[in-house]
Amino acid sequence: MKFMEDRILKDGQVRPGNILKVDSFLNHQLDITLLNEVGKAFYERFKDKGVTKILTVEASGIAIACMTANYFGTPVVFAKKSKSRNLDGDLYTSVVHSFTYGIDNTVTLSKKFLGADDKVLIVDDFLANGKAVNGLLDICRQAGAEVVGIGIAIEKGFQRGGDDLRERGYDLLSLAVVDEMSDTGIVFRKEA
Amino acid sequence: MKFMEDRILKDGQVRPGNILKVDSFLNHQLDITLLNEVGKAFYERFKDKGVTKILTVEASGIAIACMTANYFGTPVVFAKKSKSRNLDGDLYTSVVHSFTYGIDNTVTLSKKFLGADDKVLIVDDFLANGKAVNGLLDICRQAGAEVVGIGIAIEKGFQRGGDDLRERGYDLLSLAVVDEMSDTGIVFRKEA
Repeated sequence: MKFMEDRILKDGQVRPGNILKVDSFLNHQLDITLLNEVGKAFYERFKDKGVTKILTVEASGIAIACMTANYFGTPVVFAKKSKSRNLDGDLYTSVVHSFTYGIDNTVTLSKKFLGADDKVLIVDDFLANGKAVNGLLDICRQAGAEVVGIGIAIEKGFQRGGDDLRERGYDLLSLAVVDEMSDTGIVFRKEA
Repeated sequence: MKFMEDRILKDGQVRPGNILKVDSFLNHQLDITLLNEVGKAFYERFKDKGVTKILTVEASGIAIACMTANYFGTPVVFAKKSKSRNLDGDLYTSVVHSFTYGIDNTVTLSKKFLGADDKVLIVDDFLANGKAVNGLLDICRQAGAEVVGIGIAIEKGFQRGGDDLRERGYDLLSLAVVDEMSDTGIVFRKEA
């Protein structure tokens, strides 16, 4: 969508290693006005899907999930990347590779917060190889929950995650799809 | 405040090791209605302080920070617990001991997101020994930023963090202060 593309062009920075730095508004400093626009866009697209839970993974996904849940009026559940002393009982677990941090994380979710009655909207700030989203999809599969949509702020279209999800039939809304990026500029995919 | 005390009594669980489990509404599953009440309470208390930034530390603090920022209309900045490939440039750093995870974390914040012109409201879900808040205060000191208030959802009053901050003159609002907890019940501090 235009508001996200405009903001990336205004404040995003392309760095070596296919890194798109958006830390001034999306994942270190958080522009709450922009996050409201993100939440509203996800709500407009998925409001008729009967969403019961917004699912994401810590940490920066929590911001988008909260601002989205504020429109839906549903709870957020976020998967955790490390096992806390506070987490006990039965857990769903899935292994996720973090592109940003260069390591594998086991993400966990308490079974009591996701079940077969849930209709889930998965949200996250970035989609690149799709490892985080696929970890969340794996957790939903374990829970027997229905995934009714996936909302992403920025998709790296030159990596395979988004197109793979589309080919598998998921209803994916990426607010901006970056098909090319370099020192000389950013090319966004035209909306279908 | 009564709404937070009531929710703790309804859904909180006391566990061995001074753990108060509130993962059904505050730090794993997030009750967005409750988080709005938290944000509104912080806004009512600190709205005349000229707040320019809401500061917290990942992960669960992000939820409270976003819902608070939504009332203030200011950006959130959250300190990170691990060094990301995306973090570069000059960083503020401080060492924080996590009671929940039982480890020391170095928290970092990009210098460009906090400076001497900022009036900061620090927020977090829990205050126990005060290590996380003191790490954020240390970062604010390094930045030359003024801390105009501290908002906490749940304070463990039987640990020293909150009273220490009060004695040092900080304007601290804890929505619930747990002075005693055991299998037989929870005792809240009466509001001053």
